[in-house]
Amino acid sequence: MLMRNVFFLSDRTGITAETLGHSLLSQFDGFEWRKHHVSFLNTPAKVAALSERIRQAAVEEGQPPLVFSTLLDPGILAAVRQLNCHLFDFFEAHLGTLESILQRPSARIPGRSHGLGRDVSYFQRIAAIQFALTHDDGISGQLSDADIIVVGISRCGKTPVCVYLALQYGIRAANYPFTPEDMTTKTLPPLLEPLQAKLFGLTLNAERLHTIREERYPGSRYASLEQCQQEINWQNALYRRFAMPYIDSSSMSIEEISAVILDQTKLVRRERNIGLYLR
Amino acid sequence: MLMRNVFFLSDRTGITAETLGHSLLSQFDGFEWRKHHVSFLNTPAKVAALSERIRQAAVEEGQPPLVFSTLLDPGILAAVRQLNCHLFDFFEAHLGTLESILQRPSARIPGRSHGLGRDVSYFQRIAAIQFALTHDDGISGQLSDADIIVVGISRCGKTPVCVYLALQYGIRAANYPFTPEDMTTKTLPPLLEPLQAKLFGLTLNAERLHTIREERYPGSRYASLEQCQQEINWQNALYRRFAMPYIDSSSMSIEEISAVILDQTKLVRRERNIGLYLR
Repeated sequence: MLMRNVFFLSDRTGITAETLGHSLLSQFDGFEWRKHHVSFLNTPAKVAALSERIRQAAVEEGQPPLVFSTLLDPGILAAVRQLNCHLFDFFEAHLGTLESILQRPSARIPGRSHGLGRDVSYFQRIAAIQFALTHDDGISGQLSDADIIVVGISRCGKTPVCVYLALQYGIRAANYPFTPEDMTTKTLPPLLEPLQAKLFGLTLNAERLHTIREERYPGSRYASLEQCQQEINWQNALYRRFAMPYIDSSSMSIEEISAVILDQTKLVRRERNIGLYLR
Repeated sequence: MLMRNVFFLSDRTGITAETLGHSLLSQFDGFEWRKHHVSFLNTPAKVAALSERIRQAAVEEGQPPLVFSTLLDPGILAAVRQLNCHLFDFFEAHLGTLESILQRPSARIPGRSHGLGRDVSYFQRIAAIQFALTHDDGISGQLSDADIIVVGISRCGKTPVCVYLALQYGIRAANYPFTPEDMTTKTLPPLLEPLQAKLFGLTLNAERLHTIREERYPGSRYASLEQCQQEINWQNALYRRFAMPYIDSSSMSIEEISAVILDQTKLVRRERNIGLYLR
């Protein structure tokens, strides 16, 4: 593994610089990335400290480090351009093109993409997070207020997916864990029956579930491969019987599961950015 | 407000394409963006449907729509290039440059930046989310296991910040709400005393807190401007008395508050991407 220093520079949170930089780096194998996150790079003193770190990295590594930037402050940016580094300036690369297409100058004001701004949907995201928390593994609460109800047996990933749907997309996601009692019948749990249109199932393979449960309750009957397989069989049969949409999350991340749910259900996001969203 | 159609295209989740596009669009005022999110664009049939939507958008708008893409599949990408649109091809713009700097070909495999991959820290993120949920407004639980304890009076934003720290950075963040009883003294709550090094305070201005609380309990004493001001005075005095790090979240988003906390505390992230992280 080759070690390379990578810097993520931003006037504000650094979320955009990191997301874009990580996407690019993930396409290269055989490297160990030593990451330096430099958010709120907004004073000459901070630039001086950065400059020293970049200089050191270049000396250690014998070559200029990679720098991913979403800086907008012209003074800071000019200073960074003087440093001995490979600079990927994401705004520079695209803003000019966009200005000529839109025939408007851009604002070039930092903090717009992840700030509070004039974002009317911000409170809806907060409300959605609160909703996910109060309806986590919650039989109580008003399930009928949910945009979606993520269902599944214990430990198949319902909670993080609901939290992510809330945080990223402002979607009010409740989750319902199938109970041992539910599994004694072939029908939907009574609570879910009137809400069938909102249900989305998660499943996974028995080996994976076994591994996850073992981590929590090693050696338990609950975590045994046999018990896992039994519950999964019951659950998948239920999904098919009621023609419910569901996905196998065995090899998917929270982000991917959430994106698939959004894609399949056509749920409308409560967008974090201003703008009418029409699917 | 001018209406413009914008498409976000991706082989997988679309997170990177949306982050890039939103960041750029946020720099232009006076537009209403009609957003089309097209994730999992991975079959000729889907491309055909997209092609029709782009054609319609161009007709409605009288000009080609904007398209932000992180597509990697060469066949899909070639088809998209034929469409009547302004294409921002994120990988095309940067991957070649990075290949020549790193002197390696890139993998060009979709789904690497937000997939499960070989990501060892993935389970730590899941565990961190679980931790945030079980330590939400929680006096119970093992606070000493927390990486950080976010403190503050009711409704000043502790919960969403803790959830975000967990989801985005894999940080185990607990939160502790100051109680009316806490506010009868000038000392730290007994539970927090041994954990002083882990505390991070949130505060906000009274008007903002009043608005937030009114939404939940309109007309209550709890939501009154006077009560809000009183609690904030007590809280800010406590922060100063114990020289605690704290921030005013009045005009900050969850993302910004979290980024500031990370920046100020130098907490180490449990990274979602492979790679050694050394601050």
